[in-house]
Order: sequence, then structure tokens, then C-alpha cells
Amino acid sequence: MQRCAATLVAACLLGSAESLAPPSAHVVDLRSDTVTQPTAAMREAMKVAEVGDDVFGDDPTVQKLERRVADLLGKEAGVFVPSGTMGNLVSMLSHCRERGSEYIVGDQAHIYIFEQGGAAQFGGCHPRALRTFEDGTIGSPADVEAMIRPDNEHFPVTRVVALESTHNLCGGSVLSQTYVEAICGVAQKHGVSTHLDGARAWHAAAALDVPIAEYVRPFDSVSVCLSKGLGAPVGSVVVGSQEFVKRCRKLRKGLGGTTRQVGVLAAAGLVALDEILPGLGGDHARCARLAEGLAALGFDVETPTTNLLYFSVGKVPIAADAFVAECDQKGVRLLVVPGAVGRMRIVTHHQVTDAGVEKALEVFKAAVEGA
Amino acid sequence: MQRCAATLVAACLLGSAESLAPPSAHVVDLRSDTVTQPTAAMREAMKVAEVGDDVFGDDPTVQKLERRVADLLGKEAGVFVPSGTMGNLVSMLSHCRERGSEYIVGDQAHIYIFEQGGAAQFGGCHPRALRTFEDGTIGSPADVEAMIRPDNEHFPVTRVVALESTHNLCGGSVLSQTYVEAICGVAQKHGVSTHLDGARAWHAAAALDVPIAEYVRPFDSVSVCLSKGLGAPVGSVVVGSQEFVKRCRKLRKGLGGTTRQVGVLAAAGLVALDEILPGLGGDHARCARLAEGLAALGFDVETPTTNLLYFSVGKVPIAADAFVAECDQKGVRLLVVPGAVGRMRIVTHHQVTDAGVEKALEVFKAAVEGA
Amino acid sequence: MQRCAATLVAACLLGSAESLAPPSAHVVDLRSDTVTQPTAAMREAMKVAEVGDDVFGDDPTVQKLERRVADLLGKEAGVFVPSGTMGNLVSMLSHCRERGSEYIVGDQAHIYIFEQGGAAQFGGCHPRALRTFEDGTIGSPADVEAMIRPDNEHFPVTRVVALESTHNLCGGSVLSQTYVEAICGVAQKHGVSTHLDGARAWHAAAALDVPIAEYVRPFDSVSVCLSKGLGAPVGSVVVGSQEFVKRCRKLRKGLGGTTRQVGVLAAAGLVALDEILPGLGGDHARCARLAEGLAALGFDVETPTTNLLYFSVGKVPIAADAFVAECDQKGVRLLVVPGAVGRMRIVTHHQVTDAGVEKALEVFKAAVEGA
Amino acid sequence: MQRCAATLVAACLLGSAESLAPPSAHVVDLRSDTVTQPTAAMREAMKVAEVGDDVFGDDPTVQKLERRVADLLGKEAGVFVPSGTMGNLVSMLSHCRERGSEYIVGDQAHIYIFEQGGAAQFGGCHPRALRTFEDGTIGSPADVEAMIRPDNEHFPVTRVVALESTHNLCGGSVLSQTYVEAICGVAQKHGVSTHLDGARAWHAAAALDVPIAEYVRPFDSVSVCLSKGLGAPVGSVVVGSQEFVKRCRKLRKGLGGTTRQVGVLAAAGLVALDEILPGLGGDHARCARLAEGLAALGFDVETPTTNLLYFSVGKVPIAADAFVAECDQKGVRLLVVPGAVGRMRIVTHHQVTDAGVEKALEVFKAAVEGA
Repeated sequence: MQRCAATLVAACLLGSAESLAPPSAHVVDLRSDTVTQPTAAMREAMKVAEVGDDVFGDDPTVQKLERRVADLLGKEAGVFVPSGTMGNLVSMLSHCRERGSEYIVGDQAHIYIFEQGGAAQFGGCHPRALRTFEDGTIGSPADVEAMIRPDNEHFPVTRVVALESTHNLCGGSVLSQTYVEAICGVAQKHGVSTHLDGARAWHAAAALDVPIAEYVRPFDSVSVCLSKGLGAPVGSVVVGSQEFVKRCRKLRKGLGGTTRQVGVLAAAGLVALDEILPGLGGDHARCARLAEGLAALGFDVETPTTNLLYFSVGKVPIAADAFVAECDQKGVRLLVVPGAVGRMRIVTHHQVTDAGVEKALEVFKAAVEGA
Repeated sequence: MQRCAATLVAACLLGSAESLAPPSAHVVDLRSDTVTQPTAAMREAMKVAEVGDDVFGDDPTVQKLERRVADLLGKEAGVFVPSGTMGNLVSMLSHCRERGSEYIVGDQAHIYIFEQGGAAQFGGCHPRALRTFEDGTIGSPADVEAMIRPDNEHFPVTRVVALESTHNLCGGSVLSQTYVEAICGVAQKHGVSTHLDGARAWHAAAALDVPIAEYVRPFDSVSVCLSKGLGAPVGSVVVGSQEFVKRCRKLRKGLGGTTRQVGVLAAAGLVALDEILPGLGGDHARCARLAEGLAALGFDVETPTTNLLYFSVGKVPIAADAFVAECDQKGVRLLVVPGAVGRMRIVTHHQVTDAGVEKALEVFKAAVEGA
Repeated sequence: MQRCAATLVAACLLGSAESLAPPSAHVVDLRSDTVTQPTAAMREAMKVAEVGDDVFGDDPTVQKLERRVADLLGKEAGVFVPSGTMGNLVSMLSHCRERGSEYIVGDQAHIYIFEQGGAAQFGGCHPRALRTFEDGTIGSPADVEAMIRPDNEHFPVTRVVALESTHNLCGGSVLSQTYVEAICGVAQKHGVSTHLDGARAWHAAAALDVPIAEYVRPFDSVSVCLSKGLGAPVGSVVVGSQEFVKRCRKLRKGLGGTTRQVGVLAAAGLVALDEILPGLGGDHARCARLAEGLAALGFDVETPTTNLLYFSVGKVPIAADAFVAECDQKGVRLLVVPGAVGRMRIVTHHQVTDAGVEKALEVFKAAVEGA
Repeated sequence: MQRCAATLVAACLLGSAESLAPPSAHVVDLRSDTVTQPTAAMREAMKVAEVGDDVFGDDPTVQKLERRVADLLGKEAGVFVPSGTMGNLVSMLSHCRERGSEYIVGDQAHIYIFEQGGAAQFGGCHPRALRTFEDGTIGSPADVEAMIRPDNEHFPVTRVVALESTHNLCGGSVLSQTYVEAICGVAQKHGVSTHLDGARAWHAAAALDVPIAEYVRPFDSVSVCLSKGLGAPVGSVVVGSQEFVKRCRKLRKGLGGTTRQVGVLAAAGLVALDEILPGLGGDHARCARLAEGLAALGFDVETPTTNLLYFSVGKVPIAADAFVAECDQKGVRLLVVPGAVGRMRIVTHHQVTDAGVEKALEVFKAAVEGA
């Protein structure tokens, strides 16, 4: 198995955003699942939300969201945070309470690559990076076990192993239930905690068709996002034991992530769980449908497992740049992965409908035929 | 001038919150200005806000709010943050970019007392604490100058002086324009930056009847809150030079305070500037009216300057606890400062109306007469 | 009691050093006790020391020194560190193991003023500074107790109270046994640890004429220096419980203070304990003798308690600068405290003999008479 | 090229030390070059060293050593530190002055594996780890270039690339001059600094037969040890530009590594440069001679390049454990690499003479024949 082409994908994900324009009704925007707009139901929920001062735990809507997500994920407690980055940061720092802590992480993990090295920068935690494979795994259980430090003056103390599923830089790949259990088992054997960066864990569970609580059961903590595939405007939730979440809450306060009448955001998150979550399987199906259509046109397609799809021109006699520009003119937006010769990306989300997929496939076909 | 009775007040401000219940229509809630609920206009604005992905600077409503607050405060740029704590944290860390930095701060400052020592905890910045006086000052310009470190291997490097106005733990006191200019002048002379923790700087400017831009002109950076006296549900804004704000933005991202379609919150903040800000003088007048009424009843009142009022029973033959309990039963909420024998606190805000003041004074009178 | 004149004294102690020249046989050097040279016995001991690799605890001479100092101070264990600064740093960080810790310290403490704010800079610990009085105390037990934080999301967690005795910036003052016990008692009551920055605790015990083990009994940890009044070339020892010292050892390793065949330095430290420690009382007597002599000449003398003496010209018709310059020419070195008009400082140590004192007094007298 | 067998070697290097006993005259100790005892000349030098207070830069012997090492390595300035760990720590922190810095390092580097993650723990620096190959390289210049971060809010800022030569965990391998220049060239192109962990750079230069100044010329900073192959009891020196070394000095002070009359140690270091440094080539030759002898006896030998030699039993009909035990009984100490089946290690140093090598080979032969 080859190494994850991290640099290229990274460039893509960041580069793309610079050109993100607000979506319009006639456009099928396949560039990212961060471009979603709050739905009408979310907007209405924000308007009428019952709120209180969450600095003191007095916001009933936030409490409802935290309770609901904790239950959904089968953990004792949950805490709302403004972003996935803060979710991972408070999780790492809560697991690594003492000075001289180390966490094990894949070298293509979002935590390691895209979060400013926050656990080191703000908390002095040392990352022990393992090679990430194309499927998002970071080696065998024995490989991970070998990274756990023995007690020695030369070493920091290994406190937590962090996995990521679905894996952003590895094309939305899903870690298998078996893998997740094996890695967590090895960590637990050595008294080391486990964390899942589950920004898109919803998609992993949907792809595996298991309850998400079952999927994340082996982990001590999980961070999930409401603002990516679920389409809420702002927010993530970290879940774990009562004690763990209490520590996360205090860190959130220190970092400045504890806010006042934030139930207005939690209200939109609750809607997302009702309105968007059940449909993720459809996003995956639409992603697969796009993959089939592209393959039929002669493109070289990396088979998607969730809502991310990578492909290149293959036998199609058109340059990627020209193809993307042509589609754009016709109201279908996708991306050329910058730096990767001819590699393109598509992301499906709740604002990409079946009709949108059909339109996209028509536009693709026309672009190929016109070439 | 006596030392600020910090411990007692601190206990009050925190203790009070534990019993914060949602306000009801018939209750006059004088416990804090953090108990405000979003107004109808704010809720409507959240519902219809034009939003984008603020991770990439694409949210027009956030941009509008940042521009407007920066202009109001007369600074080059602004950045929206989830809380006053994060506003102060990114400000301290932006001024103290290099390892081995020190900041000068009053020993009763919110930054020093109530923010978990975040600049040290997350950024390794050393606080040099000066005694805070009852009026919120931290000594003469010469006193502050004496704290600025010379270049020596034994010392950290002084990077910023932080002031607070109005001063939370000092009864909402306002630092005078003269004082602010003198302290900033001394800092500037030594190449040391200045920051205003201006969570309630709106109230300071209103009390002095000067444009807030004039009031904060001497400072390199200011953090202002939208969610305290201004009544917005969530958010603060940090303003300063373009370069300073750029550093704050990056720190906000690292801390996890950068979010997606956060224009929904910014929209409420914009309403607060239109709807609530102009009326702060009224809050101060109502606070003064309450002070007069209490004095007339025989209470021993610490003359308020803004929207915070401290008083004790004085000649009134009733215990503070009994007085507060009696008022509570009649729908007027205030606080006994825990630990301070007989000291009580009142805060006015936009949800305390003239009628509310009249009701409160009637209730006070009845409680005294019934004693 | 007045506040300690910290800024002036600080300037003195640092400023003086810039002009430190190597001592010569004919000079009586009263500027500092850091100017001592290793004795012949120390040099011989370094030459013949039995050594091993202390990275692995294999240096018998280091072990002997650590055991001996721990026994002398009545603690379970000890660890050799290169400097008093590292001794205090590993102590603070060992007491403050978890992120979000706070330590209580006097605002004129060496730890707070002269160590670059290391516990914050390198360990994220927040200092809670109390006013230091002229005698080196930091307020009553109730004052200290009031600084201990309750459990609240807004606060760091108070982990340790650090005292200093003798107190460098307060003229070598000695904290009384009663005071030390009262402060430690209050801390213990709240589960807060206590540390003594005892760089010159040897002098405190000598001045009080109690065994040092008795003096430091109330403290959980103590850092003592071998290279100041004791005259060894390099080194300090931190003592405390086995578990505490184990943590200090690991921190020492991480900071780079664990070294190889360092028994050569420990050997000199062992000599210092035999050769220099018993004579500290003599240093104090000689300091007192100098004080008397200066008073008799008309100087205004701050009565010394240990080996530090401050004085000013008083009725003597000579400027401090001229007096110091005159003495210097005649082979007696002392200091004008920079910035403090006419305030001068003398420090006695084992290389200031009775004959040296007599010579100094003669030179003083001549300088006054020649004025 | 295979990946460096880090875990095994690491276990060896640490495990071995636990059984380090002081050397005796009749023993040939081949376990490590950290077991050396100070020579008679070093001991005499320590006894007679001219010293001063190095806290204030007044120790002439320290100054002489710093000047001499800086000149030897062709850099502007040098600073004495107690250990290689502190040398690397102050170097990393000096290159990474600002919060949010990242350093590029091999995943088997001593800095990354054996120093408690100090740059993260004490300085918040994030390590970006590259795979280390068997020869101590960390990929091609293009691989390293790809790790340098572009300017983006998601990323820390790359400040320094750290290499290691000879490479401890890679069998004392030497980075070629060409490699070193290529990597430093790529870093320089992007304004990124370069550091050499040169604990045994002396051996690298000796193996390449180039002046060490030439070898380290491409680096902005170098840390070299006096206490490993050079046999001095304690100390390392960091060299670089005046400005860089000034920052290192200040960090050393803050960490507690600045000491008083430390010229006693510097004196031994100066002797090591005269007495031991010229003979490193002999250590390498003796290592090669041992390798040949072992190969002739049928052992499977990894050809050494400097003073470290790894081998296994190969065709010899004896278990590694039995072989080592047999040798030990006859006065020749070596190590079985713990966990690595049958892998053994030998290190030559100045206290392993030609006669010692002959004795060792005889003992090896007898052990094989007796098997």
C-alpha cells in the first residue's frame, strides 16, 4: 500500500477554499462540504431557540444538544465547542494533563497537519508521528504498540493514540471496525487513552452501516463536527466520560471557547441531527453515482467510500483545467487538485441533490464530447 | 485610596451565576448584565443573515461587523472572537510573540484573576502584577514605568501593559482619559505595547461622554464584548493594526475559535450596536436612580459610575440576606456579595427598564418598611 | 511596615556584577558572596573525585552529596542541579504537574523577579503574586489563604506556595520559624504544597541558631545553593519526598541539567559542607561588626540579620560614590546601590576574614576622616 | 534502503546503561563511550583552573573554551552548556523564537526520541517528523523541501531543519558532505535555519577526514559534546552567529544551565580537545579492527563507519547472550541489544587501546572455540 499523497491533497483542500464563492440556486457546488448554507429549519430554530448563559451551564438548548450527541455516540457526557480544531485540542490536552506527555498520531492526520500543532504550541504535548497509509491506517497494532514509551527519563509519557475516520487527507477513507478495535485494544492494554478525530465519523458509520455508538465504542473520546457534512453553521461536540468532559469544559473556558447564549447555534445543530444526518447514505450514493458516470466517460476514478471522490482524466482527451473550467461555466463546480497533474476532486453533501447529480453528469458528458 | 476588595467581589460575581435562572417577564433581574436574552431584532437578524465560510474569510456579515467595530474604535482592523476571554488571550499572545515575554497587569484585572492565567498556561507569558486600586488604576505612570524590565539575562522582556475599563472587580469604575493616556505614553516611550480589556469600554465612553474611538485612541489594541452590556448572545471583537489583527486571526485559528457560517452571530452583534449601544447612558442613569433610592431608604451606597452598584444595609434594620430574599419573593433579583458581610450588588442592563426601576424601588421600600 | 525597595535593590545586585573582577589576595571584596573562589580543599577534591555516569545514577560522589544534603535538611531524597534557578524551576514544575496550575509567590521573590518567569515561560504555570514586605514576608496566613483558589472554571488551580529565606531582595532577612509554620500550615490545610527557595537557607538557620532540618521541616520541598555563601564553584540541591525528587530528576533530564561525571562538582560541594557551612555564624558576626563600625563612624546603618548589610552616609560628610571609590583604591570593595541615592551594600562570606574586617574598618575610617 | 531499526537500538542504548559499572584497569569496556573517566590531565586542569562567575561572563576558562570551539567549528560564537540535551534544546528554542514554530527532524533523531520532546514540552515547538533511513538521512532535498510549510492559517511556521551526524540510532553513520549541503541549501532557500545535532560530529569529520569547520559550514548552528567520545566529564558547546548564541545564553539562564565558577569543567573540556580529539581516527580504526576480527570468526558484522559496531552471531554456533556472558567473565564487556535477537554492540573510545583490542579479539576467539 502506498503512502498517502498528503502534500497534494493538502494543497487542494486549502487552495480550493480561496476561491469559494457563495452558492447560488442554479449551481451544483461539488468543491467541499463546508460550503453548505444553514437550512430554513436551522434558521428558524436559531430564531426561536430557548437560551441561557452557558458560561454557567444555564443554556437548555446547549444541554439538550450535548446530551443528545453523547447518547448518540454512547458516551457519558458531551461538550459543545466552536470548532473541530478546538474539539481536538481540548481532547488532546485533557488526555495529556501532565507536563511531558506524548500523543501518537498519523503523520497525515488533520491534528498533525492542519491544526497548527496546537497541542504542542498551546499545551507542550509532543506528537509521535507514525506513517499514514492510503486507507488512513497508521500501521498494525504491533506498530502502534512499539511506539508506546516505556518508563524512562529520556522519554515523554505516552498518553493517547489519536485516529481519524473518515480520513480527510486519505480521500474520506473509513477505518474498519476491526482496525479501530485492535488499535484501541493495544492502547488500553498499556493504559494509554484513545481519541477519534471524528469530524466525519458520521460518514464512517453510515458507510459501514453500523450505529455510530457501536463504531466509536472502543474510543475514550470522540470529537464530531456539526458544521461539515451535517451542514450546521457552527460547532462540534466532544464526548467521553464525565470526568474527561469536565476537564474539556475547563480547557474550553481557558481557551475562550465558552460562550453565553450559544443555544442559538446548538439549536441549528439539533436540526442538523434530525434533518441532515439520516441522509448521509444518500450523499455517499450520489458520490458513487458520480464516480460511475465519470468512469463511463473514460475518466480514471479512485473508487470513493464516503462523500469524497478523486479522479483524473485517464483516456479522456481533455486537460483537467479545461474540463473544470468548462463545467464551471455550465454551473457545476469542482476542483483540480493543485500541484497534482490532472487530479480532480468532488465532494457531495446535502445541498447536492439527485437532480444536481444528473445535471453534473450531463455537464461532464457535454464537456467531454465538446473536447 | 484603599485596595480593591477583590476576593469578596470575585466571590460575588461567580457565586451569583450559580443561581442564575432564565428571566421572566414579571421579574426585574438586577444580578448581572450577562443574563440578557437576545432581542427580537437579534433573533430575526440571525434568521436571515447572509453567511459564508469564515474559515476562509468568506462570511460577509462577519466582515461587516469586524469593519464596523474597527471603525467605531478607530483602529485599522478587527476580528470576531467567541468570547472576551479569547479576545484577551489572542491579544496578549499577539503582543507577546516571542518566548520569554512578560505583560504588566493589575492584580485585580479580569485577565489576571478570571481567565485561568491563560496567557501563561497556553502561551508561557509571565504576568507582572501591580496592585490595583479601588478606582481600577494600577499606580502612577512612574510606578508602571518602574515595572518595565531593562535588558538583562535574568529578566523576561516586557511586551505589553494591559488596563481594564470599566473595571469589573472595582465596581465598574472608569479609568480617566488622562490616566489612560499617561500609562500608554510611558509604555510607548519604552517600546511596550498597550492593550485595553474593554469588555465594558462601551460603558466607560458613555460615562465620560466621549466617542469610544477617542477614549481608546492611546491603546494599540482593544477587546470589546458584544455579549455583556450590549446584549448580543455571543461574541467579542479585538481591534488594532492590520498586522496585529492578522496575528490574532492566526491564534484564533490555532485555539479553535475560527468557525464556519458564524455570520449568524455577527448579525446579532450588528443589531446590538444599533439597538442597545445608544442606550447605555440610560442604564447608568437607572443605576444612579437605584442608588439614590437606596440611599434615601437609609442604605449605605457606593456611588456608581456606570451600571454596577454596590451597597450595604447601613442604618436599615434588616440583614442583607433577609432583604435580598424578601425582594426575590416579590420579583426583584439582586445579590448578596458572598463573604462580604452585608454587601450587595445590582447591575443594570437593557432589560431593566424605567418601570423595572420603579418596581424595584417599591419592592425595596416595602422590604425596609416590613422589616 | 514598608514595602521592600525592590527595584533599587534589584538594580544593585545585577549592576554590581557587571564590574565583578577576580579577587586578589590583597583585596577585601565585600560586593557579593558569588565572588568566592574554590578553596584548595575543593580543588583537590575535584581532582581526586570518584565519578561515574550520573545520567544513569552511577556517580557515587553525586549520590553521597544528595544523600548528605537530604539528611541535613531532614527530607527523604535530594537531587543535584546546576543552579538555584534550575532548582526552583524543577521544584515549581514538579509541584505544578498539571496544566492550569498556579503558584503563590511574593512579588519581590527571586523566583518572581530574577528567573525569567521560568515556571510560566517553560511550564505554563501562572504566578499569583502577593506584596512582599520589608522582612521578606508576604502577608498573614489569612492573606495567603485568601489567595488559594476555590474550584471554579475561571481559575487555575493553586498548587504551591513558595517562600524565600533568607530573602535576597529584602536585605538577607530571615523568615521566623513561626511565620514559616503558619504559612505552611494554611497551605497544607488546603492541600497546597510548599516550597522554600532556600538559596541562603543555611544563613537563616545559622541566624536562628536552629538545625536547618528543623527550620525547613514545614516545607514539602527546599532548594539550597552550594555556590553562594557555601563557596562551592557550581551547584544546588533540591530536597523533598522520594516521589517529588523523582519528578524533579525527570524534569532536570528534560531541561538538560542531567550530566555525566558530575561527581567532580559534587566533590567540591561536599567539601563546602564541611569547610564553609560551620562558619556562617562568623560571616554574620563579621557583618554585624562592620555594621557597628560604620554606625560608630556616623553612617546610617540598616541592622543586618545575616550576611547582607545596607547603609547610607547619614551624618558623614561624604558622598556615597566618593566613599566607595576611595575604599576601592585602598583595596576594599563595596557597592553603591544604583539608583538609590547614597545607599550602599556589603556582603560577607568565607573569604572575608577578621583581618579583612579590620582592614575594611580602617579604610572606612580613613575615608571618612579624609573627607 | 531499510528503515532504521530504532526501537531495538534505542532499547539497547538505554538498557545497557542500567548495568554500567565503573571501569577497572583490567577490563576492556566496549559498552559505550559514555563510560570514560576523566584523564589525569583533565583532573589536574580542573584543580588549577582559573575561574570567575560565569553568570556574568567572568570566567576566563569558559570563555577560552567557547572561543576555541567556535573557532574550531568556524562559527562566530559559542556557549558552554551542561549537556547535549540542553545544547539541542536552547538551539531549537533559539531558532523557534515565536509561538507557532515547527522544526523538521528525523523520526529516529536523538532530539525526537531521547530528549523528552523538550522543544514541545518546554517551548511549544511542533516537530514535523520525517522517516529516518538506515544511513541517518531523512529523505531527499525535495522530500525535506516538501515539508516546509507555506504561509497558511492552518499551519505552524517552519523555522529549522535539524540533522544528526554521526547518527546515534543509525549505528554511528556519517551524513555525507554532499547531503548536508543539499539539505541546508534547500532550507536556506526558504529562509529556514539549519541545526546539526553534532554530539559526535567530531567523529563524522574524522571519518570523512575533513576539518570539522568545513563539515559543519552549511549549518546555522551546531551542538557538540565534550563528554562522549572526547571523554570530558561534563559539557557541550553550541556554536552559531553572535546573535543566535546570545539568544541561547539567555535561554540557558532561564533553564537554569548558567552556573558560577564552571571554568573547572571547561578546563577539562580544553584538555579533551588537545588530548582526545586527535585520536578519534584511532578509535575508528580499532572499531574496524574489531569488526574484521569478528567477521573472521564467522560473525555477521555490520561494517562500522565510526566508533559504533553492530553484529550478530551469524554462523558462529553460540548464542549472543552466552557469548557476551563468556566475554564478561574474561574482562571484556559488550552488549546484547535487548529485544533484537542475537544483535550485539561494541563502542570504541579513548580508553580502549590497541592492547585492549587484541585482548578483546583473543577473548572473542576463545569464547567461540569454547562453544
